Amino acid sequence: MSTDPRQTVIAVDLGGTNIRAALCNRQGSILKRHKQLTLADEGPQAVINRIVESIRRVMPDTDPASVKAVAVASPGPLDPFTGVVMYAPNLSGWIDIPLRAILQERLQLPVAIGNDANLAALGEQRYGAGRGMKDMVYVTISTGIGGGVILNNQMVLGMRGLAAEIGHTTLDIHAGWTHAGVPGSFEGYASGTGIARLAQHKLREGRPSLMVELAGGHIDAVTAREVSEAAQHNDPLALEIVAEVARIIGLGFVNLLHLYDPAIIVVGGSVSLMGDMLFEPVRQTVQQYAMPPYRNRPIVRAALGDDCGLLGAAALAFDLE
Amino acid sequence: MSTDPRQTVIAVDLGGTNIRAALCNRQGSILKRHKQLTLADEGPQAVINRIVESIRRVMPDTDPASVKAVAVASPGPLDPFTGVVMYAPNLSGWIDIPLRAILQERLQLPVAIGNDANLAALGEQRYGAGRGMKDMVYVTISTGIGGGVILNNQMVLGMRGLAAEIGHTTLDIHAGWTHAGVPGSFEGYASGTGIARLAQHKLREGRPSLMVELAGGHIDAVTAREVSEAAQHNDPLALEIVAEVARIIGLGFVNLLHLYDPAIIVVGGSVSLMGDMLFEPVRQTVQQYAMPPYRNRPIVRAALGDDCGLLGAAALAFDLE
Repeated sequence: MSTDPRQTVIAVDLGGTNIRAALCNRQGSILKRHKQLTLADEGPQAVINRIVESIRRVMPDTDPASVKAVAVASPGPLDPFTGVVMYAPNLSGWIDIPLRAILQERLQLPVAIGNDANLAALGEQRYGAGRGMKDMVYVTISTGIGGGVILNNQMVLGMRGLAAEIGHTTLDIHAGWTHAGVPGSFEGYASGTGIARLAQHKLREGRPSLMVELAGGHIDAVTAREVSEAAQHNDPLALEIVAEVARIIGLGFVNLLHLYDPAIIVVGGSVSLMGDMLFEPVRQTVQQYAMPPYRNRPIVRAALGDDCGLLGAAALAFDLE
Repeated sequence: MSTDPRQTVIAVDLGGTNIRAALCNRQGSILKRHKQLTLADEGPQAVINRIVESIRRVMPDTDPASVKAVAVASPGPLDPFTGVVMYAPNLSGWIDIPLRAILQERLQLPVAIGNDANLAALGEQRYGAGRGMKDMVYVTISTGIGGGVILNNQMVLGMRGLAAEIGHTTLDIHAGWTHAGVPGSFEGYASGTGIARLAQHKLREGRPSLMVELAGGHIDAVTAREVSEAAQHNDPLALEIVAEVARIIGLGFVNLLHLYDPAIIVVGGSVSLMGDMLFEPVRQTVQQYAMPPYRNRPIVRAALGDDCGLLGAAALAFDLE
């Protein structure tokens, strides 16, 4: 057991909509929370002021010296080694912001920053669905596809902290389209956006489906949510789309198994809420196409929900010793 | 500087044809070599006896105590943590052979074993084309496609040492064929075998080419070597095949850049001998499809030739401290 009296850290999850801060202990319990709107259009200075305010709100009243460090999960790309946020699509004006240096100066505490998807991975590995596994791949499937990889209990970062850009890998070099510049990418096919595009494409071919009714009669309004709901009602076209997407996700996971050799794949994000309707055919695809030694690695739902980034930041802060 | 008087290690490269052993120093210089035929069909016991003999042949005569450890680069899959070779396609009877334990017992020295492609990567990173880079991806393209990844100066191993199976990742989920079980795999497309298959396919469509003449008039005898040679003579079909293969390799490298974020990609194997004729269009493909922060990472030829596995084993043996 550590004899360090500083047994808490402050974790921050900086999002396009909300800033969330939490005081956490070593067990990953959240002792105190604060949440406020990011109001990103007011620019970096105002947002950083709010980050500092949120951190102060969760400081322990009686014993501020018990806080050993602060870590921030931020949208990327960012450089975890220099602590600079290079660019953040949902935060206006965030270009080359030295977030770590600014916060260290203002808080007089050690600060670390990490990419939100990488830290969600670390959170799930330390405190969530990957607990006890030293090698884990985390994939989040919602509007986009992102992820993080933990090998030998450490985040896989690469030269500039840009590893594990899982969504931006090609699964079809002959696809006639690119997404974020990459032909036939995992994200282009299997993100919520990709699923909606596939559904709308099939509906425009004139195939009937409950999905249109669920979307108020407008094909353009069909999203992954309507696909999921219609599939739950055994709508044939929705089931066909789920099967097609599950095969693609399964083959994407085969690549991740063969490249990272994880003990487990943990899946988060809104699309993962489809549950076994999606996960079962994904697992079957992996059984079919992965090489024998990689089969039977568990593929499971993430456990921490919205707190994954926050708890990953807490783990990162505790690792700062 | 280390004050350890044991400044040498013995490295072994166990291949289907030859067993090679070398006495190496910390600078990666080979002080003494021995090579003999593997004679794999005599079975594991005979091969292990020859490994031990080769090791004894390169022991320093005057000062055997200067040897700190032994490491063996072996065909895989093998478990680097337990030291067991699970299976070796080119070595008859090698199933679950506890190679490390056997050698430790017989040599009374610390022994490590590693997958030959992973150790080739480590050799190139410590002593070859990736020297000075802490994050490197190594890809070998010859009969098959294999590789190894070094991040933060350490081999990426995964749960069972089976990471970086680069050749067995899908680049085309809609391909109508599988190779080693994986549809549209990198190895199926771009290995020497894949290149030969593509060339033969195009030749059977009746396209004229110097390749057939170079192969003694037999389409079936056309290999990647004839493709390369005909392309050097500006044969149109051969140039078309090189361009197609370079695009596939380039897109495969985009995936590796996005997943591992290496500072450099080092390419070995017989197909890499095509040189800039292949490398230039590969680099152009990467420039076109990689996301901006990953462009301009050098893509270079391996430097160690046949000694890459041997020197990787030497690095592994030195790491055993």
